[in-house]
Amino acid sequence: MSKKLKIVPLGGLGEVGKNMMAYEYGENVLIVDIGIMFPENDMLGIDYIIPDFTDYIAAKRDAVRGIVITHGHEDHVGAISHLLQEVNAPVYGTTLTMGLAEVKMKRNKMAGQGNFNVVQAGDTVNIGPFKVEFFHVCHSIPDAVGLGITSPAGLVVHMSDYKFDHTPVDGWQTDYAKLASFSERGVDLLLADSTNATRPGWTPSERVIDPAFDTVFENAPARIIVASFASQISRMQQVVDAAVKHGRKIAFVGMSMVDNSKLAIKLGYLEVPTNTLVSLDQALGMKGKDVVLMGTGSQGEPSSIMGRLATGTNRHFGLKDNDTIVLSSHPIPGNEESVNKTINSLLRRGATVIDDTILPIHVSGHASQEEMKLLLSLVKPKNFVPMHGELHMLHRHAMMAEGMGIDPDSIFIAENGQVIELENSKISLGERLPGGYVFVDGDSIGNTDHKVMQERERLSQGGIFLIDLNIDKFTGKLMHDPEIITRGFVTPEEADELIPLVQKKVIDIIEGGIDNPKRVMNVIRSFLYNETKRKTMVFVTSSKV
Amino acid sequence: MSKKLKIVPLGGLGEVGKNMMAYEYGENVLIVDIGIMFPENDMLGIDYIIPDFTDYIAAKRDAVRGIVITHGHEDHVGAISHLLQEVNAPVYGTTLTMGLAEVKMKRNKMAGQGNFNVVQAGDTVNIGPFKVEFFHVCHSIPDAVGLGITSPAGLVVHMSDYKFDHTPVDGWQTDYAKLASFSERGVDLLLADSTNATRPGWTPSERVIDPAFDTVFENAPARIIVASFASQISRMQQVVDAAVKHGRKIAFVGMSMVDNSKLAIKLGYLEVPTNTLVSLDQALGMKGKDVVLMGTGSQGEPSSIMGRLATGTNRHFGLKDNDTIVLSSHPIPGNEESVNKTINSLLRRGATVIDDTILPIHVSGHASQEEMKLLLSLVKPKNFVPMHGELHMLHRHAMMAEGMGIDPDSIFIAENGQVIELENSKISLGERLPGGYVFVDGDSIGNTDHKVMQERERLSQGGIFLIDLNIDKFTGKLMHDPEIITRGFVTPEEADELIPLVQKKVIDIIEGGIDNPKRVMNVIRSFLYNETKRKTMVFVTSSKV
Repeated sequence: MSKKLKIVPLGGLGEVGKNMMAYEYGENVLIVDIGIMFPENDMLGIDYIIPDFTDYIAAKRDAVRGIVITHGHEDHVGAISHLLQEVNAPVYGTTLTMGLAEVKMKRNKMAGQGNFNVVQAGDTVNIGPFKVEFFHVCHSIPDAVGLGITSPAGLVVHMSDYKFDHTPVDGWQTDYAKLASFSERGVDLLLADSTNATRPGWTPSERVIDPAFDTVFENAPARIIVASFASQISRMQQVVDAAVKHGRKIAFVGMSMVDNSKLAIKLGYLEVPTNTLVSLDQALGMKGKDVVLMGTGSQGEPSSIMGRLATGTNRHFGLKDNDTIVLSSHPIPGNEESVNKTINSLLRRGATVIDDTILPIHVSGHASQEEMKLLLSLVKPKNFVPMHGELHMLHRHAMMAEGMGIDPDSIFIAENGQVIELENSKISLGERLPGGYVFVDGDSIGNTDHKVMQERERLSQGGIFLIDLNIDKFTGKLMHDPEIITRGFVTPEEADELIPLVQKKVIDIIEGGIDNPKRVMNVIRSFLYNETKRKTMVFVTSSKV
Repeated sequence: MSKKLKIVPLGGLGEVGKNMMAYEYGENVLIVDIGIMFPENDMLGIDYIIPDFTDYIAAKRDAVRGIVITHGHEDHVGAISHLLQEVNAPVYGTTLTMGLAEVKMKRNKMAGQGNFNVVQAGDTVNIGPFKVEFFHVCHSIPDAVGLGITSPAGLVVHMSDYKFDHTPVDGWQTDYAKLASFSERGVDLLLADSTNATRPGWTPSERVIDPAFDTVFENAPARIIVASFASQISRMQQVVDAAVKHGRKIAFVGMSMVDNSKLAIKLGYLEVPTNTLVSLDQALGMKGKDVVLMGTGSQGEPSSIMGRLATGTNRHFGLKDNDTIVLSSHPIPGNEESVNKTINSLLRRGATVIDDTILPIHVSGHASQEEMKLLLSLVKPKNFVPMHGELHMLHRHAMMAEGMGIDPDSIFIAENGQVIELENSKISLGERLPGGYVFVDGDSIGNTDHKVMQERERLSQGGIFLIDLNIDKFTGKLMHDPEIITRGFVTPEEADELIPLVQKKVIDIIEGGIDNPKRVMNVIRSFLYNETKRKTMVFVTSSKV
C-alpha cells in the first residue's frame, strides 16, 4: 500500500482551508475545524455560509474517524451542529473549545447530541491511523491549539490561527519547544495561517491594550461601553481587569456576550472577582462613573448593541451624555463602511468614540510577516502550503517562504477543493473536488444558490413592475384597465405619472392585436427604459376569460 | 449693515463640504466646488450622487456671483453640468481644472455652454464682494489650488484637498509663503481637508513612487499593466517617465483615461516624448517586454479594464502569461472587498499583481496629521472648521487643533447643511438647511429616494412571489389554477415543490370564502415563511369576471 496522505481544503469563502480541512489516509478521514462564514456585501439576504461538505461526507461518512477543532471562534467551530447532523464521529478539542461547541449545539437544538472529548495542549490522541499532538498557540481566544499530525506518510504540522505573543493575557505562550521538537523529528509539510501575510513586522502583544484601557478608564467622565466580539474571551478579561483596577463594576450585554462570559467563568477562562460583575439592570441604575458595559457590535452590525445604540433603537437603554464608547476591534475587510457609519452616528449622538486609530485598544490575533518567518525557521518544513487566507495572502506567504530558501517546487498554493498529496516527503497536486460553500438562508441550507442571488441582484437594481391583464376571449379586448403594481423602481410621485401612460400603452398594444404576455412585457420594458433610462423587471400575468 | 459672512456646506455624502460649499455675504453667493460622489454599498441601483442644491439655488439663483473649482477631480468638478443647468454664473479655475470641467460638459451634451474663466495660482479675482486669491497646493492632480477669500467680514482660507509634498512630480510645492502671508494679515477662519485626519505622520512624497516603479519595470518579464484613476495625471507622468527610462512604449486604455491623457498632453500637464505613446492596437502587436498599458480599475470596478481582465470579459485583449499588473492606488473605504476579489481573480488567471502592500507604488494625495498641524501653525487661524471628511475625521482634526492651542469655542464641527457665520472674527452656528444629496439613477435626478432604496433592499433580501387569481363573480370560485411567478426567493427545484402547495393553499382559502387579495397575501406570506423560514414579498392580483 502506498503511504500517501491526502490533504483536502474542503470549502469556505475564499479563505482556503479556514473553515474545514480533511486529512485522508487510506480509508480514514480526520476532519479539522468546521466553521461558518459571514456573507459578503453582494450576497443578498443570506444569514451565513457553511462549507459545502454534503457530497464529500456522503462518500466518506463511514471513514470519518474524528473531528478536531483548533479553537472556539465561529469560523472554526460554528458549523459543528450542521456537520454532526451528517456524520457520527467523536469531536476533540480543549475545554473552552468544547464548551463553545456545546453552546453551538444548544442553539441549534442539538444539546447533548455530540460526542465531545476534551483534550489539553500537550496531549497526544490516536484517531484512526493519525497520531494527533495538540500544542498550545496564542490567539485572540484562550486555549487555542496547533496540531502535529503523524501518519505513515509522515509528520504534518497544521498551524491554524496563531501569533507569537511573548506576553499573552493568560501568560501562556505559543509552544516554541514543541515546534522545535517537530523540526528535529523532521516536518514533511507545514500548513499555516496566512491572514496577516500582507502585514509587515510583528503583531503587538495583547498586553499593549492594558495601558490603553488605563488611559480610557482614567479619562472617561461617565459610562464606558466596550464593543468587541462575543468570542474574545481574552478581551473580556482585560476589560474586567481594567474595571477592577479603576473601581468600576462590569455588566455584559447581549445574549452571546452573556452566554460566553458565563461559560468562560464556569470553565475558569475568565476570572471576575466577587462583586465586580453586575446585571445590566443593576448597571443601568448605577452612576455612569461606576460602571462599564461590554457588548457586541464592533463591526457596525445593525442588529448588535452598538448598531442599535448608534441608531437609537436599543430597547433596554440608550446613549447618555458623556458616554465613552470603545471599539475594541478592527474592521474586517468589507465592513469598513458600516463601521465608519456607526462611529459617525455615535458621534452625532454625542458619545466619545475611541477606536484603534486613536488608542491601541485592539491588536490582531494573527501572526504578521516576521512571525510567519519565525514559524518557518522554527519548523523548517520540507514542504509548505499556506492556508487560511484569500489567494493574494497565500501568494504573499508563499513568497516569504521562497525568500527563506524553501524550494519553490515544495510550495503549493491550493484553493478550496484542490487536494494535495504527500508521499515520500514530496507534495503533489491531487484531484480537484468542488470545494464550495452553501448559503444558509432561513431554515434552508443550500437552497439559495448563485442564480437566486443574481435574481435578487437584478431586483435590487431597478425593482419590479407588474401588469395584470384580463382579456375577453371572444372580443380579444381588455375587460378592464390593466392592474399595475410597482416596487423599488420609481417614487410614488413618478409612478402616478408613469402608470396611466403604461396603461394607455398596454391598451394600444392589445388593441393592435398583440396579446402574448411575453411580447407585452418586452414592449413595456422598452417603453419604461425610454421614459426613465432605468431598467426594471417587468412581469405580465394574463388571463383570457 | 452687519459684516456677516455665512459659510454653507451644501451637501454631499457624509464628507462635509467636499462636494459643494457656498459663501454668502449679503445678497451675494460664491460657490466653491461642485462634485459627484459614488454610491455606498447599500445604495442599490444608483449610478452616482450629487449634492441636493435645488432648493438653495432656487432661492439664491440671482445672487450667485461665481463658481470656483479648486481642482479637477470628480468629487470637486463632476457635477458642474448639473449646476450650470440651474444657474448662470461664471466659473473660475486653473487651466487643467477648466479643461476637465469642459470634458464633463461635453459628456453631458452641454459642450461650449459654460462661462469658464481660466485663472492661475497667484491670481486674485474679484467675484462680487469676494476677493478670491488662488494659491498653489500639491495634490494627486496638477494645478490644484487653495483659496484666500476676503470679504468685509474678514479673511477665510479655504484649504481644499492638499498635501505638503517637498518633492512633487511637477516640482511645484504648496505655497508656504502665501499661507504665511495670510497669517501675517490675520486669518479669521480656516477650513481644511480632513480626509487623512486618522493617519499619523506625514504623507510620503509622490517621488517615492519612482524607485518602486523602477523595481517593477526592471523585473517584469513581459507586459506591465498599470491601473489608476483616470484623473491621476501626475501618476500618468510617472508611468510615462518609467516607460521612457526602461525603453518601453506606453498606451492608455479606456475612454476616460485616453480623453484625460490627451487633454493633459494638449494643455502641457503631461509630457510624453515623441514615439513613446502608441495606440492600444499597436501596443497589443508589440512584444510584452516593450510595452506598458495604463487603464482604470484600481478600485475593482467590474466595468473597468482591470475588472474585465479579472473576469476574462475584456473585449479588446485578455491577460497573458507573465503579465505584471500594478494597482497604483489604495482601496477607498467600502471598496476593500471588491479590490481584494479583483486581485484574487487576476492571480488565479496567472498574473503577477503588485499593490501598495508589496511596493510603494501609491501614496495618498491628502495631508496626514503632521501636515495638518503644519498648516495650522502656518496659518494661525482665529477660528477653525474642519471640512472634507466624515464626522469621525472632523472630530479628529478638531482634536488636533485643540491640542495646538486653538480655543475649543473657536472650533466648530458642522455637518452638511449646517450654516456657520463669521462676524467680528467670531464664528457661531447659523441656521440648519437640508444639506442633503440626490441620487442620479438613469436619466432621473432625485427621483430615486430612500423609500425606493428600502423597497429595493426588501426585494434583494427575499425576492418576490406573485399570485394571479381569476375568480368567477357568480360562483366565487377560481376560474383556473392561480398563476404563480417567483424570482430571487428559492431555487427552481424548491419552487417546483412549493408552487403546487401554494396553489392548493390558495384554492382552499378561496373555497373557504376568503377572496380579498390582501388577506390571501397575508395567509400565503405566513405559509411561505413557515415552509422556508424566509421572508419574501408576496403580491396578489385578482380579477372577478
